[in-house]
Amino acid sequence: MPDAEITVVGNTGDDIHLFGLKVCPDLDTVMYTLGGGIHEEQGWGREGETFAVKEELAAYGVGPEWFGLGDRDFATHIVRTQMLGAGYPLSAVTEALCARWKPGVRLLPMTDDRVETHVAIDVDGERRAVHFQEYWVKLRASVDALAVVPVGAEAAKPAPGVLDAIAGADVILFPPSNPVVSVGTILAVPGIREAVAAAPAPVVGLSPLVGGAPVRGMADKVLAAVGVESTAQAVARHYGADLIDGWLVDTVDADAVAAVEEAGIACRAVPLMMTDEDATAAMARAALALAEEVRA
Amino acid sequence: MPDAEITVVGNTGDDIHLFGLKVCPDLDTVMYTLGGGIHEEQGWGREGETFAVKEELAAYGVGPEWFGLGDRDFATHIVRTQMLGAGYPLSAVTEALCARWKPGVRLLPMTDDRVETHVAIDVDGERRAVHFQEYWVKLRASVDALAVVPVGAEAAKPAPGVLDAIAGADVILFPPSNPVVSVGTILAVPGIREAVAAAPAPVVGLSPLVGGAPVRGMADKVLAAVGVESTAQAVARHYGADLIDGWLVDTVDADAVAAVEEAGIACRAVPLMMTDEDATAAMARAALALAEEVRA
Repeated sequence: MPDAEITVVGNTGDDIHLFGLKVCPDLDTVMYTLGGGIHEEQGWGREGETFAVKEELAAYGVGPEWFGLGDRDFATHIVRTQMLGAGYPLSAVTEALCARWKPGVRLLPMTDDRVETHVAIDVDGERRAVHFQEYWVKLRASVDALAVVPVGAEAAKPAPGVLDAIAGADVILFPPSNPVVSVGTILAVPGIREAVAAAPAPVVGLSPLVGGAPVRGMADKVLAAVGVESTAQAVARHYGADLIDGWLVDTVDADAVAAVEEAGIACRAVPLMMTDEDATAAMARAALALAEEVRA
Repeated sequence: MPDAEITVVGNTGDDIHLFGLKVCPDLDTVMYTLGGGIHEEQGWGREGETFAVKEELAAYGVGPEWFGLGDRDFATHIVRTQMLGAGYPLSAVTEALCARWKPGVRLLPMTDDRVETHVAIDVDGERRAVHFQEYWVKLRASVDALAVVPVGAEAAKPAPGVLDAIAGADVILFPPSNPVVSVGTILAVPGIREAVAAAPAPVVGLSPLVGGAPVRGMADKVLAAVGVESTAQAVARHYGADLIDGWLVDTVDADAVAAVEEAGIACRAVPLMMTDEDATAAMARAALALAEEVRA
Protein backbone atom coordinates (compact mmCIF):
# COMPACT_ATOMS: atom_id res chain seq x y z
CA MET A 1 0.00 0.00 0.00
CA PRO A 2 2.43 2.66 -1.19
CA ASP A 3 -0.11 5.45 -0.64
CA ALA A 4 -1.02 4.40 2.87
CA GLU A 5 0.41 5.92 6.01
CA ILE A 6 1.34 2.84 7.93
CA THR A 7 2.22 2.74 11.61
CA VAL A 8 3.84 -0.42 12.93
CA VAL A 9 3.63 -0.94 16.68
CA GLY A 10 6.50 -3.21 17.59
CA ASN A 11 6.95 -5.61 20.47
CA THR A 12 9.73 -4.67 22.86
CA GLY A 13 9.24 -7.51 25.34
CA ASP A 14 11.94 -9.44 23.47
CA ASP A 15 14.44 -6.68 24.12
CA ILE A 16 17.51 -7.72 26.00
CA HIS A 17 20.63 -6.12 27.42
CA LEU A 18 23.66 -7.91 26.03
CA PHE A 19 27.22 -6.80 26.73
CA GLY A 20 25.76 -3.68 28.30
CA LEU A 21 23.99 -2.80 25.07
CA LYS A 22 20.26 -2.51 24.49
CA VAL A 23 19.16 -4.94 21.79
CA CYS A 24 15.64 -4.68 20.30
CA PRO A 25 15.31 -7.72 18.04
CA ASP A 26 11.72 -7.14 16.93
CA LEU A 27 12.06 -3.45 16.14
CA ASP A 28 15.30 -4.10 14.29
CA THR A 29 13.86 -6.95 12.26
CA VAL A 30 11.06 -4.66 11.04
CA MET A 31 13.51 -1.82 10.40
CA TYR A 32 16.10 -3.93 8.60
CA THR A 33 13.49 -5.86 6.59
CA LEU A 34 11.55 -2.86 5.35
CA GLY A 35 14.75 -0.82 5.01
CA GLY A 36 16.47 -3.39 2.82
CA GLY A 37 19.19 -4.40 5.26
CA ILE A 38 17.92 -7.72 6.53
CA HIS A 39 19.68 -11.06 6.17
CA GLU A 40 16.94 -12.52 3.95
CA GLU A 41 17.49 -16.23 4.49
CA GLN A 42 17.96 -15.89 8.22
CA GLY A 43 15.07 -13.50 8.75
CA TRP A 44 16.93 -11.43 11.35
CA GLY A 45 20.18 -9.55 11.60
CA ARG A 46 22.06 -7.78 8.84
CA GLU A 47 23.05 -9.07 5.43
CA GLY A 48 26.77 -9.52 4.79
CA GLU A 49 27.63 -9.72 8.45
CA THR A 50 31.06 -10.28 9.96
CA PHE A 51 31.62 -11.38 13.53
CA ALA A 52 34.87 -9.82 14.71
CA VAL A 53 33.36 -8.22 17.81
CA LYS A 54 31.60 -11.42 18.88
CA GLU A 55 34.78 -13.45 18.45
CA GLU A 56 36.73 -10.95 20.52
CA LEU A 57 34.11 -10.94 23.25
CA ALA A 58 34.38 -14.72 23.36
CA ALA A 59 38.17 -14.40 23.59
CA TYR A 60 37.60 -12.24 26.69
CA GLY A 61 35.33 -14.98 28.02
CA VAL A 62 32.37 -12.62 27.88
CA GLY A 63 29.07 -14.15 26.88
CA PRO A 64 26.44 -15.08 26.11
CA GLU A 65 27.74 -16.77 22.99
CA TRP A 66 24.32 -18.09 22.01
CA PHE A 67 23.08 -14.72 20.80
CA GLY A 68 24.44 -14.01 17.34
CA LEU A 69 25.27 -10.34 17.07
CA GLY A 70 27.21 -9.37 13.96
CA ASP A 71 29.50 -6.36 13.64
CA ARG A 72 27.01 -4.32 11.60
CA ASP A 73 24.22 -5.14 14.01
CA PHE A 74 26.44 -4.11 16.94
CA ALA A 75 26.60 -0.59 15.54
CA THR A 76 22.82 -0.29 15.77
CA HIS A 77 22.88 -1.34 19.40
CA ILE A 78 25.77 0.99 20.18
CA VAL A 79 23.91 3.96 18.71
CA ARG A 80 20.72 2.98 20.52
CA THR A 81 22.46 2.50 23.86
CA GLN A 82 24.31 5.78 23.53
CA MET A 83 21.08 7.66 22.78
CA LEU A 84 19.19 5.96 25.61
CA GLY A 85 22.07 6.83 27.93
CA ALA A 86 21.79 10.44 26.81
CA GLY A 87 18.16 10.40 27.92
CA TYR A 88 16.23 9.89 24.71
CA PRO A 89 13.23 7.56 24.98
CA LEU A 90 13.23 4.40 22.87
CA SER A 91 10.60 5.87 20.54
CA ALA A 92 12.89 8.81 19.70
CA VAL A 93 15.85 6.46 19.28
CA THR A 94 13.85 4.23 16.96
CA GLU A 95 12.86 7.24 14.89
CA ALA A 96 16.51 8.29 14.66
CA LEU A 97 17.60 4.83 13.55
CA CYS A 98 14.78 4.72 11.00
CA ALA A 99 15.95 8.05 9.57
CA ARG A 100 18.74 6.01 8.06
CA TRP A 101 16.77 2.92 7.08
CA LYS A 102 13.66 4.65 5.74
CA PRO A 103 11.41 1.61 6.23
CA GLY A 104 8.46 3.39 4.63
CA VAL A 105 6.37 2.98 7.78
CA ARG A 106 6.33 4.79 11.09
CA LEU A 107 7.82 2.28 13.49
CA LEU A 108 6.82 2.76 17.12
CA PRO A 109 7.85 0.67 20.09
CA MET A 110 4.78 -0.45 22.03
CA THR A 111 6.20 1.43 25.02
CA ASP A 112 9.17 3.52 26.09
CA ASP A 113 9.16 1.70 29.42
CA ARG A 114 11.10 -1.45 30.11
CA VAL A 115 9.07 -4.60 29.62
CA GLU A 116 10.84 -7.95 29.54
CA THR A 117 9.14 -11.20 28.65
CA HIS A 118 10.14 -13.98 31.00
CA VAL A 119 9.30 -17.64 30.53
CA ALA A 120 8.83 -19.98 33.49
CA ILE A 121 10.37 -23.39 32.94
CA ASP A 122 11.06 -26.45 35.03
CA VAL A 123 14.73 -27.09 35.82
CA ASP A 124 15.21 -30.32 37.77
CA GLY A 125 11.89 -29.94 39.48
CA GLU A 126 12.40 -26.25 40.30
CA ARG A 127 10.38 -23.55 38.62
CA ARG A 128 12.72 -20.96 37.14
CA ALA A 129 12.13 -17.84 35.07
CA VAL A 130 14.41 -17.16 32.12
CA HIS A 131 14.48 -14.24 29.70
CA PHE A 132 12.47 -14.93 26.59
CA GLN A 133 15.61 -14.84 24.45
CA GLU A 134 17.22 -17.48 26.64
CA TYR A 135 14.14 -19.67 26.21
CA TRP A 136 13.82 -19.04 22.50
CA VAL A 137 17.38 -18.75 21.23
CA LYS A 138 19.49 -20.64 23.76
CA LEU A 139 17.05 -23.41 24.69
CA ARG A 140 15.32 -23.38 21.30
CA ALA A 141 12.01 -23.79 23.18
CA SER A 142 13.07 -27.37 23.85
CA VAL A 143 11.36 -27.49 27.24
CA ASP A 144 7.78 -26.67 28.12
CA ALA A 145 6.92 -23.06 28.86
CA LEU A 146 4.96 -23.14 32.13
CA ALA A 147 4.06 -19.48 31.95
CA VAL A 148 4.91 -16.41 29.92
CA VAL A 149 5.11 -13.17 31.87
CA PRO A 150 5.69 -9.72 30.33
CA VAL A 151 7.51 -8.36 33.37
CA GLY A 152 6.88 -4.67 33.83
CA ALA A 153 3.99 -4.53 31.36
CA GLU A 154 1.39 -3.64 33.98
CA ALA A 155 3.27 -0.44 34.81
CA ALA A 156 4.15 0.45 31.21
CA LYS A 157 2.56 3.22 29.22
CA PRO A 158 2.00 3.05 25.46
CA ALA A 159 4.72 4.96 23.60
CA PRO A 160 3.78 8.39 22.22
CA GLY A 161 1.66 7.98 19.10
CA VAL A 162 0.56 4.39 19.71
CA LEU A 163 -2.94 5.09 21.03
CA ASP A 164 -3.52 7.86 18.50
CA ALA A 165 -2.47 5.58 15.65
CA ILE A 166 -4.89 2.91 16.83
CA ALA A 167 -7.76 5.33 17.41
CA GLY A 168 -7.25 7.08 14.08
CA ALA A 169 -6.57 4.05 11.90
CA ASP A 170 -8.64 3.14 8.86
CA VAL A 171 -7.69 -0.50 9.28
CA ILE A 172 -5.89 -2.37 12.05
CA LEU A 173 -4.02 -5.55 11.13
CA PHE A 174 -2.64 -8.23 13.42
CA PRO A 175 0.23 -9.78 11.48
CA PRO A 176 0.81 -13.55 11.58
CA SER A 177 3.14 -13.06 14.52
CA ASN A 178 3.36 -15.01 17.72
CA PRO A 179 0.00 -14.44 19.49
CA VAL A 180 1.53 -14.80 22.95
CA VAL A 181 5.04 -13.34 23.01
CA SER A 182 4.68 -10.83 20.16
CA VAL A 183 1.09 -9.59 19.72
CA GLY A 184 0.12 -10.69 23.23
CA THR A 185 2.92 -8.67 24.79
CA ILE A 186 1.87 -5.55 22.93
CA LEU A 187 -1.72 -6.06 24.09
CA ALA A 188 -0.46 -6.47 27.66
CA VAL A 189 0.55 -2.82 27.82
CA PRO A 190 -2.37 -1.18 29.63
CA GLY A 191 -4.47 0.86 27.24
CA ILE A 192 -3.47 -0.85 24.00
CA ARG A 193 -5.92 -3.74 24.13
CA GLU A 194 -8.67 -1.33 25.14
CA ALA A 195 -7.76 1.05 22.31
CA VAL A 196 -7.90 -1.74 19.73
CA ALA A 197 -11.23 -2.97 21.10
CA ALA A 198 -12.65 0.57 21.02
CA ALA A 199 -11.20 1.58 17.65
CA PRO A 200 -13.78 2.39 14.98
CA ALA A 201 -11.58 0.69 12.34
CA PRO A 202 -12.06 -2.96 11.42
CA VAL A 203 -9.45 -5.23 13.04
CA VAL A 204 -8.26 -8.17 10.96
CA GLY A 205 -5.73 -10.80 11.94
CA LEU A 206 -3.75 -13.37 9.98
CA SER A 207 -3.20 -16.80 11.46
CA PRO A 208 0.41 -17.61 12.36
CA LEU A 209 -0.57 -21.28 12.39
CA VAL A 210 -1.04 -23.27 9.21
CA GLY A 211 -2.21 -26.84 9.40
CA GLY A 212 -1.89 -26.83 13.17
CA ALA A 213 1.76 -25.82 13.20
CA PRO A 214 3.50 -22.46 13.39
CA VAL A 215 4.81 -21.31 10.02
CA ARG A 216 7.92 -19.95 11.64
CA GLY A 217 9.32 -20.23 15.12
CA MET A 218 7.86 -22.28 17.90
CA ALA A 219 4.57 -20.55 18.66
CA ASP A 220 2.95 -23.82 19.73
CA LYS A 221 5.27 -23.99 22.74
CA VAL A 222 4.11 -20.71 24.20
CA LEU A 223 0.48 -21.18 23.16
CA ALA A 224 0.39 -24.25 25.39
CA ALA A 225 1.55 -22.06 28.28
CA VAL A 226 -1.57 -19.92 27.95
CA GLY A 227 -3.83 -22.92 27.39
CA VAL A 228 -4.50 -22.32 23.71
CA GLU A 229 -4.42 -25.11 21.16
CA SER A 230 -2.13 -24.81 18.19
CA THR A 231 -4.81 -24.30 15.59
CA ALA A 232 -5.82 -21.33 13.50
CA GLN A 233 -9.32 -21.25 15.05
CA ALA A 234 -8.03 -21.47 18.63
CA VAL A 235 -5.83 -18.44 18.12
CA ALA A 236 -8.75 -16.48 16.64
CA ARG A 237 -10.90 -17.38 19.66
CA HIS A 238 -7.99 -16.50 21.96
CA TYR A 239 -7.99 -12.96 20.55
CA GLY A 240 -11.79 -13.02 20.62
CA ALA A 241 -14.55 -11.09 18.91
CA ASP A 242 -14.06 -8.22 21.39
CA LEU A 243 -10.73 -7.54 19.78
CA ILE A 244 -10.79 -8.75 16.17
CA ASP A 245 -13.49 -8.48 13.54
CA GLY A 246 -11.91 -10.64 10.87
CA TRP A 247 -9.47 -13.54 10.64
CA LEU A 248 -7.61 -15.14 7.80
CA VAL A 249 -6.69 -18.81 7.87
CA ASP A 250 -4.67 -20.71 5.32
CA THR A 251 -6.50 -22.69 2.63
CA VAL A 252 -5.38 -25.93 4.31
CA ASP A 253 -7.36 -24.80 7.35
CA ALA A 254 -10.56 -24.05 5.39
CA ASP A 255 -12.52 -26.29 7.75
CA ALA A 256 -11.71 -23.88 10.57
CA VAL A 257 -13.68 -21.04 8.98
CA ALA A 258 -17.03 -22.12 10.41
CA ALA A 259 -15.67 -22.44 13.96
CA VAL A 260 -14.15 -18.96 13.80
CA GLU A 261 -17.32 -17.41 12.42
CA GLU A 262 -19.32 -19.12 15.18
CA ALA A 263 -17.26 -17.03 17.58
CA GLY A 264 -18.50 -13.90 15.85
CA ILE A 265 -15.38 -13.29 13.77
CA ALA A 266 -15.58 -13.06 9.98
CA CYS A 267 -13.20 -15.60 8.49
CA ARG A 268 -11.76 -16.40 5.06
CA ALA A 269 -9.34 -19.09 3.91
CA VAL A 270 -6.55 -17.80 1.65
CA PRO A 271 -2.93 -18.83 1.04
CA LEU A 272 -0.93 -17.70 4.07
CA MET A 273 2.60 -18.84 3.26
CA MET A 274 4.93 -15.87 2.80
CA THR A 275 7.00 -17.62 0.15
CA ASP A 276 7.87 -14.43 -1.69
CA GLU A 277 6.90 -10.76 -1.87
CA ASP A 278 4.00 -11.42 -4.25
CA ALA A 279 2.52 -14.02 -1.93
CA THR A 280 3.00 -11.66 1.02
CA ALA A 281 1.36 -8.78 -0.84
CA ALA A 282 -1.58 -11.03 -1.71
CA MET A 283 -2.00 -11.82 1.98
CA ALA A 284 -2.04 -8.12 2.83
CA ARG A 285 -4.59 -7.47 0.08
CA ALA A 286 -6.78 -10.30 1.37
CA ALA A 287 -6.62 -8.84 4.87
CA LEU A 288 -7.58 -5.39 3.60
CA ALA A 289 -10.42 -6.89 1.54
CA LEU A 290 -11.75 -8.67 4.61
CA ALA A 291 -11.47 -5.41 6.54
CA GLU A 292 -13.70 -3.74 3.95
CA GLU A 293 -16.19 -6.60 4.18
CA VAL A 294 -16.50 -6.35 7.94
CA ARG A 295 -16.62 -2.54 7.77
CA ALA A 296 -19.63 -2.84 5.50
CA MET B 1 63.69 -8.43 32.73
CA PRO B 2 61.80 -11.72 32.68
CA ASP B 3 62.42 -12.32 36.40
CA ALA B 4 61.29 -8.89 37.50
CA GLU B 5 57.86 -8.10 38.85
CA ILE B 6 56.98 -5.07 36.80
CA THR B 7 54.13 -2.69 37.55
CA VAL B 8 53.14 -0.26 34.84
CA VAL B 9 51.17 2.77 35.99
CA GLY B 10 49.23 3.96 32.97
CA ASN B 11 47.91 7.39 32.08
CA THR B 12 44.13 7.59 31.91
CA GLY B 13 43.87 11.29 31.13
CA ASP B 14 43.66 10.38 27.45
CA ASP B 15 40.56 8.29 28.10
CA ILE B 16 37.51 9.31 26.17
CA HIS B 17 33.87 8.31 25.91
CA LEU B 18 33.09 7.52 22.31
CA PHE B 19 29.74 6.17 21.16
CA GLY B 20 28.85 5.74 24.83
CA LEU B 21 31.85 3.47 25.35
CA LYS B 22 34.81 4.06 27.62
CA VAL B 23 38.01 4.04 25.58
CA CYS B 24 41.39 3.94 27.36
CA PRO B 25 43.97 4.40 24.60
CA ASP B 26 47.08 4.37 26.78
CA LEU B 27 46.15 1.35 28.88
CA ASP B 28 45.13 -0.55 25.76
CA THR B 29 48.30 0.31 23.91
CA VAL B 30 50.37 -1.14 26.75
CA MET B 31 48.09 -4.17 27.04
CA TYR B 32 47.97 -4.91 23.31
CA THR B 33 51.69 -4.25 22.82
CA LEU B 34 52.93 -6.44 25.64
CA GLY B 35 50.16 -8.99 24.99
CA GLY B 36 51.07 -9.42 21.35
CA GLY B 37 47.90 -7.92 19.87
CA ILE B 38 49.09 -4.48 18.78
CA HIS B 39 49.07 -3.16 15.24
CA GLU B 40 52.87 -2.93 15.08
CA GLU B 41 53.32 -0.35 12.32
CA GLN B 42 50.60 1.90 13.65
CA GLY B 43 51.63 1.65 17.28
CA TRP B 44 48.05 1.59 18.58
CA GLY B 45 44.93 -0.48 17.98
CA ARG B 46 44.72 -4.14 17.07
CA GLU B 47 46.47 -6.02 14.32
CA GLY B 48 44.29 -7.36 11.51
CA GLU B 49 41.50 -4.91 12.17
CA THR B 50 38.25 -4.57 10.24
CA PHE B 51 36.02 -1.52 10.43
CA ALA B 52 32.44 -2.72 9.98
CA VAL B 53 31.15 -1.09 13.17
CA LYS B 54 32.77 2.26 12.39
CA GLU B 55 31.37 2.25 8.86
CA GLU B 56 27.89 1.50 10.19
CA LEU B 57 28.12 4.23 12.80
CA ALA B 58 29.06 6.64 10.02
CA ALA B 59 26.05 5.40 8.02
CA TYR B 60 23.91 6.38 11.02
CA GLY B 61 25.60 9.78 10.96
CA VAL B 62 27.10 9.09 14.38
CA GLY B 63 30.59 10.39 14.95
CA PRO B 64 33.28 11.26 15.61
CA GLU B 65 34.77 9.74 12.48
CA TRP B 66 38.26 10.98 13.28
CA PHE B 67 38.85 8.38 15.97
CA GLY B 68 39.76 5.05 14.37
CA LEU B 69 38.16 2.26 16.34
CA GLY B 70 38.32 -1.15 14.69
CA ASP B 71 35.92 -4.01 15.29
CA ARG B 72 38.34 -5.96 17.49
CA ASP B 73 39.15 -2.87 19.49
CA PHE B 74 35.43 -2.16 19.95
CA ALA B 75 35.06 -5.45 21.80
CA THR B 76 37.58 -4.29 24.41
CA HIS B 77 35.65 -1.09 24.96
CA ILE B 78 32.34 -2.94 25.12
CA VAL B 79 33.65 -5.29 27.81
CA ARG B 80 35.18 -2.40 29.73
CA THR B 81 32.03 -0.28 29.57
CA GLN B 82 29.86 -3.18 30.61
CA MET B 83 32.07 -3.91 33.64
CA LEU B 84 32.25 -0.24 34.63
CA GLY B 85 28.46 -0.07 34.32
CA ALA B 86 28.23 -3.07 36.63
CA GLY B 87 30.20 -1.13 39.22
CA TYR B 88 33.74 -2.45 38.86
CA PRO B 89 36.48 0.17 39.16
CA LEU B 90 38.75 0.70 36.16
CA SER B 91 41.62 -1.05 37.93
CA ALA B 92 39.55 -4.24 38.29
CA VAL B 93 38.38 -3.95 34.69
CA THR B 94 41.96 -3.53 33.48
CA GLU B 95 43.00 -6.60 35.45
CA ALA B 96 40.15 -8.59 33.88
CA LEU B 97 41.11 -7.50 30.36
CA CYS B 98 44.75 -8.34 31.07
CA ALA B 99 43.74 -11.84 32.17
CA ARG B 100 43.26 -12.47 28.48
CA TRP B 101 46.26 -10.56 27.15
CA LYS B 102 48.80 -11.61 29.77
CA PRO B 103 51.08 -8.63 29.17
CA GLY B 104 53.65 -9.97 31.65
CA VAL B 105 53.37 -6.85 33.79
CA ARG B 106 50.81 -5.66 36.31
CA LEU B 107 49.05 -2.84 34.51
CA LEU B 108 47.42 -0.28 36.80
CA PRO B 109 45.52 2.83 35.78
CA MET B 110 46.93 5.85 37.58
CA THR B 111 43.48 6.32 39.15
CA ASP B 112 40.01 4.80 39.19
CA ASP B 113 38.56 8.31 39.14
CA ARG B 114 37.72 10.20 36.01
CA VAL B 115 40.48 12.49 34.83
CA GLU B 116 40.29 14.02 31.38
CA THR B 117 43.08 16.00 29.80
CA HIS B 118 41.80 19.12 28.10
CA VAL B 119 43.82 21.39 25.87
CA ALA B 120 43.10 25.09 25.61
CA ILE B 121 43.39 26.42 22.05
CA ASP B 122 42.58 29.62 20.24
CA VAL B 123 39.63 29.42 17.85
CA ASP B 124 39.09 32.68 15.98
CA GLY B 125 40.33 34.71 18.91
CA GLU B 126 38.31 32.78 21.49
CA ARG B 127 39.98 30.50 24.02
CA ARG B 128 38.35 27.09 23.87
CA ALA B 129 39.05 23.81 25.67
CA VAL B 130 38.99 20.59 23.69
CA HIS B 131 39.49 17.01 24.79
CA PHE B 132 43.08 15.90 24.41
CA GLN B 133 42.07 13.37 21.74
CA GLU B 134 40.38 16.07 19.74
CA TYR B 135 43.57 18.14 19.91
CA TRP B 136 45.88 15.22 19.18
CA VAL B 137 43.97 13.03 16.76
CA LYS B 138 41.49 15.35 15.08
CA LEU B 139 43.57 18.54 14.94
CA ARG B 140 46.90 16.68 14.78
CA ALA B 141 48.24 19.30 17.20
CA SER B 142 48.21 21.73 14.29
CA VAL B 143 47.41 24.72 16.49
CA ASP B 144 49.25 25.94 19.57
CA ALA B 145 48.29 24.45 22.90
CA LEU B 146 47.75 27.41 25.23
CA ALA B 147 47.36 25.22 28.29
CA VAL B 148 47.02 21.55 29.19
CA VAL B 149 44.67 20.79 32.07
CA PRO B 150 44.10 17.32 33.55
CA VAL B 151 40.49 18.02 34.52
CA GLY B 152 39.52 16.18 37.68
CA ALA B 153 43.08 15.27 38.62
CA GLU B 154 43.13 17.36 41.80
CA ALA B 155 40.23 15.32 43.22
CA ALA B 156 41.49 11.94 41.97
CA LYS B 157 43.00 9.27 44.16
CA PRO B 158 45.76 6.91 43.00
CA ALA B 159 44.32 3.53 42.01
CA PRO B 160 44.77 0.67 44.49
CA GLY B 161 48.34 -0.60 44.34
CA VAL B 162 49.90 2.46 42.72
CA LEU B 163 51.42 4.04 45.82
CA ASP B 164 52.52 0.67 47.20
CA ALA B 165 54.20 -0.21 43.91
CA ILE B 166 56.09 3.08 43.94
CA ALA B 167 57.07 2.85 47.60
CA GLY B 168 58.16 -0.78 47.29
CA ALA B 169 59.93 -0.59 43.94
CA ASP B 170 63.60 -1.49 43.47
CA VAL B 171 63.78 0.82 40.47
CA ILE B 172 61.38 3.41 39.07
CA LEU B 173 61.59 4.21 35.38
CA PHE B 174 60.01 7.09 33.50
CA PRO B 175 59.59 5.83 29.93
CA PRO B 176 60.28 8.13 26.97
CA SER B 177 56.64 9.16 26.98
CA ASN B 178 55.13 12.58 26.64
CA PRO B 179 56.33 14.51 29.73
CA VAL B 180 53.21 16.68 29.82
CA VAL B 181 50.16 14.69 28.73
CA SER B 182 51.39 11.21 29.68
CA VAL B 183 53.88 11.23 32.56
CA GLY B 184 52.79 14.69 33.67
CA THR B 185 49.17 13.64 33.97
CA ILE B 186 50.10 10.66 36.12
CA LEU B 187 52.18 12.93 38.37
CA ALA B 188 49.20 15.30 38.63
CA VAL B 189 47.21 12.76 40.63
CA PRO B 190 47.72 13.90 44.22
CA GLY B 191 50.07 11.56 46.04
CA ILE B 192 51.86 10.09 43.06
CA ARG B 193 54.48 12.79 42.56
CA GLU B 194 55.09 12.83 46.30
CA ALA B 195 55.41 9.03 46.38
CA VAL B 196 57.96 9.05 43.57
CA ALA B 197 59.93 11.83 45.24
CA ALA B 198 59.91 9.96 48.55
CA ALA B 199 60.58 6.50 47.15
CA PRO B 200 63.83 4.90 48.31
CA ALA B 201 64.38 3.45 44.81
CA PRO B 202 66.42 5.27 42.19
CA VAL B 203 64.27 7.04 39.60
CA VAL B 204 65.58 7.09 36.05
CA GLY B 205 63.97 8.67 33.03
CA LEU B 206 64.53 8.32 29.29
CA SER B 207 64.29 11.38 27.10
CA PRO B 208 61.36 11.39 24.66
CA LEU B 209 63.21 14.06 22.67
CA VAL B 210 66.12 13.24 20.40
CA GLY B 211 68.00 16.04 18.66
CA GLY B 212 65.43 18.57 19.84
CA ALA B 213 62.45 16.79 18.35
CA PRO B 214 59.99 14.25 19.74
CA VAL B 215 60.74 10.71 18.53
CA ARG B 216 57.06 10.05 18.16
CA GLY B 217 54.02 12.24 18.40
CA MET B 218 54.01 15.95 18.86
CA ALA B 219 55.42 16.40 22.37
CA ASP B 220 56.97 19.76 21.43
CA LYS B 221 53.48 21.25 21.03
CA VAL B 222 52.41 20.54 24.57
CA LEU B 223 55.85 21.25 26.05
CA ALA B 224 55.51 24.79 24.77
CA ALA B 225 52.22 25.06 26.66
CA VAL B 226 54.03 24.45 29.94
CA GLY B 227 56.97 26.67 29.01
CA VAL B 228 59.50 23.90 28.50
CA GLU B 229 61.89 23.86 25.55
CA SER B 230 61.92 20.86 23.27
CA THR B 231 65.30 19.56 24.32
CA ALA B 232 66.37 16.52 26.24
CA GLN B 233 67.95 18.63 28.97
CA ALA B 234 64.92 20.90 29.36
CA VAL B 235 62.66 17.92 29.97
CA ALA B 236 65.07 16.54 32.60
CA ARG B 237 65.08 19.91 34.36
CA HIS B 238 61.30 20.05 34.07
CA TYR B 239 61.04 16.82 36.03
CA GLY B 240 63.79 18.07 38.33
CA ALA B 241 66.23 16.52 40.75
CA ASP B 242 63.48 16.28 43.37
CA LEU B 243 61.83 13.66 41.23
CA ILE B 244 64.43 11.92 39.09
CA ASP B 245 67.91 10.74 39.97
CA GLY B 246 69.07 9.76 36.50
CA TRP B 247 68.34 10.69 32.90
CA LEU B 248 69.22 9.12 29.59
CA VAL B 249 69.65 11.22 26.47
CA ASP B 250 70.35 10.01 22.97
CA THR B 251 73.91 9.93 21.71
CA VAL B 252 73.10 12.85 19.37
CA ASP B 253 72.33 14.88 22.49
CA ALA B 254 75.62 14.02 24.23
CA ASP B 255 76.31 17.72 24.72
CA ALA B 256 73.23 17.92 26.97
CA VAL B 257 74.76 15.61 29.59
CA ALA B 258 76.66 18.36 31.37
CA ALA B 259 73.62 20.62 31.62
CA VAL B 260 71.52 17.83 33.09
CA GLU B 261 74.20 16.87 35.60
CA GLU B 262 74.49 20.50 36.63
CA ALA B 263 70.88 20.21 37.74
CA GLY B 264 71.85 17.38 40.07
CA ILE B 265 70.66 14.56 37.82
CA ALA B 266 73.04 11.81 36.70
CA CYS B 267 73.00 11.65 32.92
CA ARG B 268 74.29 9.31 30.22
CA ALA B 269 74.08 9.44 26.44
CA VAL B 270 73.02 6.16 24.82
CA PRO B 271 71.08 5.24 21.66
CA LEU B 272 67.41 6.03 22.35
CA MET B 273 65.70 5.08 19.10
CA MET B 274 63.36 2.11 19.63
CA THR B 275 64.00 0.75 16.16
CA ASP B 276 63.47 -2.87 17.19
CA GLU B 277 63.15 -5.03 20.30
CA ASP B 278 66.91 -5.38 20.72
CA ALA B 279 67.40 -1.62 20.63
CA THR B 280 64.52 -1.20 23.09
CA ALA B 281 65.94 -3.84 25.42
CA ALA B 282 69.33 -2.11 25.31
CA MET B 283 67.63 1.14 26.38
CA ALA B 284 65.98 -0.61 29.30
CA ARG B 285 69.30 -2.15 30.32
CA ALA B 286 71.00 1.22 30.12
CA ALA B 287 68.29 2.72 32.34
CA LEU B 288 68.70 -0.07 34.89
CA ALA B 289 72.46 0.32 34.80
CA LEU B 290 72.13 4.04 35.48
CA ALA B 291 69.73 3.24 38.33
CA GLU B 292 72.41 1.02 39.91
CA GLU B 293 74.98 3.81 39.49
CA VAL B 294 72.83 6.39 41.22
CA ARG B 295 71.83 3.90 43.93
CA ALA B 296 75.52 3.43 44.72
